[in-house]
Amino acid sequence: MFKFLPKNEVFFDLFREQGDAIKRGVEHLQATLDDFTNVNAKLARMKEIEHEGDHITHQTFEHLNKTFVTPIDGEEIHALAKNLDDVLDIAHGAFSLLVLYKVEAPTEPAKKLVAVLVKSVEKINEALELLPRLKKENGPILELCIEINRLENEGDVIFHEALGELFDGKMDAIEIIKWKDIYQTLELATDKCEDLANIFEAIVLKNA
Amino acid sequence: MFKFLPKNEVFFDLFREQGDAIKRGVEHLQATLDDFTNVNAKLARMKEIEHEGDHITHQTFEHLNKTFVTPIDGEEIHALAKNLDDVLDIAHGAFSLLVLYKVEAPTEPAKKLVAVLVKSVEKINEALELLPRLKKENGPILELCIEINRLENEGDVIFHEALGELFDGKMDAIEIIKWKDIYQTLELATDKCEDLANIFEAIVLKNA
Amino acid sequence: MFKFLPKNEVFFDLFREQGDAIKRGVEHLQATLDDFTNVNAKLARMKEIEHEGDHITHQTFEHLNKTFVTPIDGEEIHALAKNLDDVLDIAHGAFSLLVLYKVEAPTEPAKKLVAVLVKSVEKINEALELLPRLKKENGPILELCIEINRLENEGDVIFHEALGELFDGKMDAIEIIKWKDIYQTLELATDKCEDLANIFEAIVLKNA
Repeated sequence: MFKFLPKNEVFFDLFREQGDAIKRGVEHLQATLDDFTNVNAKLARMKEIEHEGDHITHQTFEHLNKTFVTPIDGEEIHALAKNLDDVLDIAHGAFSLLVLYKVEAPTEPAKKLVAVLVKSVEKINEALELLPRLKKENGPILELCIEINRLENEGDVIFHEALGELFDGKMDAIEIIKWKDIYQTLELATDKCEDLANIFEAIVLKNA
Repeated sequence: MFKFLPKNEVFFDLFREQGDAIKRGVEHLQATLDDFTNVNAKLARMKEIEHEGDHITHQTFEHLNKTFVTPIDGEEIHALAKNLDDVLDIAHGAFSLLVLYKVEAPTEPAKKLVAVLVKSVEKINEALELLPRLKKENGPILELCIEINRLENEGDVIFHEALGELFDGKMDAIEIIKWKDIYQTLELATDKCEDLANIFEAIVLKNA
Repeated sequence: MFKFLPKNEVFFDLFREQGDAIKRGVEHLQATLDDFTNVNAKLARMKEIEHEGDHITHQTFEHLNKTFVTPIDGEEIHALAKNLDDVLDIAHGAFSLLVLYKVEAPTEPAKKLVAVLVKSVEKINEALELLPRLKKENGPILELCIEINRLENEGDVIFHEALGELFDGKMDAIEIIKWKDIYQTLELATDKCEDLANIFEAIVLKNA
């Protein structure tokens, strides 16, 4: 008796493409913070990357709606695609705020938060790479999840220090409004990475 | 052989009622911005409309829990009802902020954002009208979805311009806090309309 | 013919443990507002309680992933665990803000909001106590849901009054930023209690 394992590799390919778009997006954000010139033009590039991501997400949803037998639960395919999309969306949102709030120079905590985000996205991409060999690679995927969780905690500490700094009495209210919003948006992006780690974990547990 | 199509029209009727309540709510918000007098009394009316919406949503959920065979997936009925409820809820929230923040006069961007919201809600109502004739009306529903997405982009541009204006150095911090919050709430309402368009699209794809 | 009713009590035990952790958390927050000394040390204690809660939630998810026949729908077990986790998470978040924003003394509205939260959590715990005797206890569970909804409305009124006070012209912008955020976080916690009431209601309706 054969146990038919659906091979439908399309989903894994789309996830890897989506992961790649996110990586390009957050690296572009990081590069912009390091060289804070022509920010408007760089935001236009970020918007392009986000649109590419949207397009891939849309393809995943369409393929999911047409596919009966999926390699992992349809629900989890949906959750993965949605949360991958959110990470890029939020990173783009943070980038927009830099422009909308007429930020003159990025702060150190902003750079640190983005560095954590870039590392989390790398770990997510490694997990997406292993996903088609689920079961065989359950161990390594779970290790990546632990690392993503650790990075989220690291981000949390940076975020809390950054917020504390905003309220140490040296900054004026308008600057506080701006940076609080930017830090929260960056923190939300690392939170979404943690949500992705939780989805990976659930997939692994279901397929153990 | 007959293919039994469940006719359960109750859901479609409830969706149309819900859509109608949202329409009355956002139009009332728009009328209030145009004639910004007796705002407290007008907020009380908005609250009534929101309660009517809540009541309909509750009926949908109750009916869903008691119904085995539904005309569209139960999951999507739930998502539709929840997101329709959210639109009215958020519009009511934006109205409340006008009162809570002791706003003296509405700004132009607020009026523009509400105008976009009113148009999106009209398109949603048109889609709810076509929903019972799904399959036959798939094309027109998808066109409405495209239009709702376009409106969300239009709202996004207005929102970004409005945020930019807040931080152009002329406004004091307390005014920035107020309007940033009001604009974000209005923008969230048009986002929810886009979520509804995505649900319509998923329903159409599943029933293509 | 027997109708096999799965007894799997593990979930109910975990829910009660989770409810107990939340109760300890919000009571600790309340005690801290009443005696606002050594707030850093008290935050560390809050963080411990939150970790205990996280651990229980994680156990629930793991058990759910390994269990085929559940006493109530898996989807609802997931929603309950997730929302219970959120309540404690958000209460911890509100506590953190007191420290991060270098608050000198809690305000009256903050104390009132926490008092409402503590009462809501008590009602949730009573409902979790009755959950294993679902069907027999449907009536009492629905009464608790009504009470939780009433408490959410009470919290809403306090929240709106508190926001109004912030904008009465006596407070400076930085204080407004701080307290608006703290009040919103506390209000969100009571909202999550209402979400839990809605889940209880859905469970009762499905098992009526």
